[in-house]
Amino acid sequence: MAASTPTSRPNPERIFNTMIAFQETEALKAAIDLDIFTAIADGADTAASLAAKAVAAERGVRILCDFLTIRGFLAKVAGRYALTPESAIFLNRHSPACLASMIDFLASPWSRRNFGTLTEAVRKGGTASETGDHTKPNEEIWVNFARSMAPLTVPAAEFLADLTGAAEGKPCKALDVAAGHGMFGITVAKRNPNARIAAVDWPAVLEVAKENAVKFAVADRYTTRPGSAFEVEFGEGYDYVLLTNIFHHFDIPTCEKLMRRVRAALIPGGKAITLEFVPNEDRVTPPMAAAFSLVMLAGTDAGDAYTFAQYENMFGNAGFVKTTLHPVPDVPQQVLVSET
Amino acid sequence: MAASTPTSRPNPERIFNTMIAFQETEALKAAIDLDIFTAIADGADTAASLAAKAVAAERGVRILCDFLTIRGFLAKVAGRYALTPESAIFLNRHSPACLASMIDFLASPWSRRNFGTLTEAVRKGGTASETGDHTKPNEEIWVNFARSMAPLTVPAAEFLADLTGAAEGKPCKALDVAAGHGMFGITVAKRNPNARIAAVDWPAVLEVAKENAVKFAVADRYTTRPGSAFEVEFGEGYDYVLLTNIFHHFDIPTCEKLMRRVRAALIPGGKAITLEFVPNEDRVTPPMAAAFSLVMLAGTDAGDAYTFAQYENMFGNAGFVKTTLHPVPDVPQQVLVSET
Repeated sequence: MAASTPTSRPNPERIFNTMIAFQETEALKAAIDLDIFTAIADGADTAASLAAKAVAAERGVRILCDFLTIRGFLAKVAGRYALTPESAIFLNRHSPACLASMIDFLASPWSRRNFGTLTEAVRKGGTASETGDHTKPNEEIWVNFARSMAPLTVPAAEFLADLTGAAEGKPCKALDVAAGHGMFGITVAKRNPNARIAAVDWPAVLEVAKENAVKFAVADRYTTRPGSAFEVEFGEGYDYVLLTNIFHHFDIPTCEKLMRRVRAALIPGGKAITLEFVPNEDRVTPPMAAAFSLVMLAGTDAGDAYTFAQYENMFGNAGFVKTTLHPVPDVPQQVLVSET
Repeated sequence: MAASTPTSRPNPERIFNTMIAFQETEALKAAIDLDIFTAIADGADTAASLAAKAVAAERGVRILCDFLTIRGFLAKVAGRYALTPESAIFLNRHSPACLASMIDFLASPWSRRNFGTLTEAVRKGGTASETGDHTKPNEEIWVNFARSMAPLTVPAAEFLADLTGAAEGKPCKALDVAAGHGMFGITVAKRNPNARIAAVDWPAVLEVAKENAVKFAVADRYTTRPGSAFEVEFGEGYDYVLLTNIFHHFDIPTCEKLMRRVRAALIPGGKAITLEFVPNEDRVTPPMAAAFSLVMLAGTDAGDAYTFAQYENMFGNAGFVKTTLHPVPDVPQQVLVSET
């Protein structure tokens, strides 16, 4: 992620840095594995003291910390390392906003394997891996997701809870489809003491969601419906159905099929609330949402980051009368609210 | 390599992008494997026409090209893709400056394996791989290097040839140690019709150098000395010994040992010319030279990017009276000239 040297004529530095970009991931992963950022937060600030704390070689720690400094994740003055404001907040395990666990999913062996056969995926138009049909259970993958990715959900989960009118505390019933860590539904329940949540996901994944429901003291209003989102009985009478980061795994007919089941589970006037990467029509902006298509090409048979027009059409076909798009501050995804 | 959103408060985008930086390497690799850049240079400019040319799925090509556009390697206007000035020069195989082959070495399975065990390398203070002792032959690695990395040598090779006074055409004898593709010595011979080159490297690697000597019409003045740079007979009477990208693989005593052999092979007044990544004393600047230490931690038992003071000391211990440092325009390495 080194910045290019500003220059008027083309130079190959950015191409070179992209050819070795995988080294960036591995360096950050090693630093997280060895908990270097937390060790610095705790006062160790030389290669020697960090090596002692991390039970590693001083030479190895020196080279790694120098690299992290070059990439802007640490500062170095007179041989002493310090956290940057960014790493103090997001990579230090004492920080409530720490995102370190996310590397376990984002750079998991599964994800690397998907990208390791990207050329083949481009040839086929879908993943070259065996796990590309996400209507089937891939519990190991999604338990990893549930264990790793909860930290990133906070701003989006608060935004979704607001959309359910959680602040007013009106009794409500919400279904959290593909709940994962459960934090979207759990945040609704935390914010609204009169909300009851039913969570759908594969059985092993729901165990993680249940732990979180206990941790956030909403377990008495939290039930689970283990199984496939395409087959398990959803029940009915829901005011809200939350669909966070699920549609992108599937082709359009499969998305419509799911959304028809959602429609049937809602009360009249109920709403489906979708959190998704929604690129513009040009499919190259905004960058994080548009780039997500590649993750789906690498890892799914037919998933994609769909445009708003595509979602409007799918959700209309599934029986929703109106869908509106809502940007979420500080989050690469957007929210779609679909009305019955 | 996405740019961070400029903002006054810390945001996790750069950390997130580093966690998935390996995807950047894989995307560029897939585009090079499928020769997308050359296909665009040849006039294909839609996902459909590129897919036909690359024998790939239109959907896969669309998603890959959109990603390359997001990352600035392509432009996209009204659904048509175009090369950027950078990709036209450095990624299009019709361009004489094309660097595409470099990904075969920079992101080779060997390099990925080295970085895949980086945490263990930091713990040990040296590579966790079996191939970390580079005094031993690792011919498969270095044949790959010789086949892939020649394009990057041009500016540095011209600079080195200038240092040998090639323009004057005075008869001279040069030894190219760890010649690899041979392009450093071959450039001296190309520029000076009265130069004779002897190249040292492992036998299979020298086959690549010999091919290049034929290609550049200097084979009649090109001889090879296959074997270890620490054991093979160098011969004597050399005006120049070229040492390009070799010292960083070894610890300091091993570097000194090699440089003593070099000293003995030079005529009085002869010069050793070293091309190396030379970080400043702070070891975190300049970025590309300083970052190279991590590559050596990942892939060697005890190699490093040494500072100028370290080289001065090593080369002094090996019997050289004076070493000077020379920056090379457009190249992350620098040149050290050591006088007998």
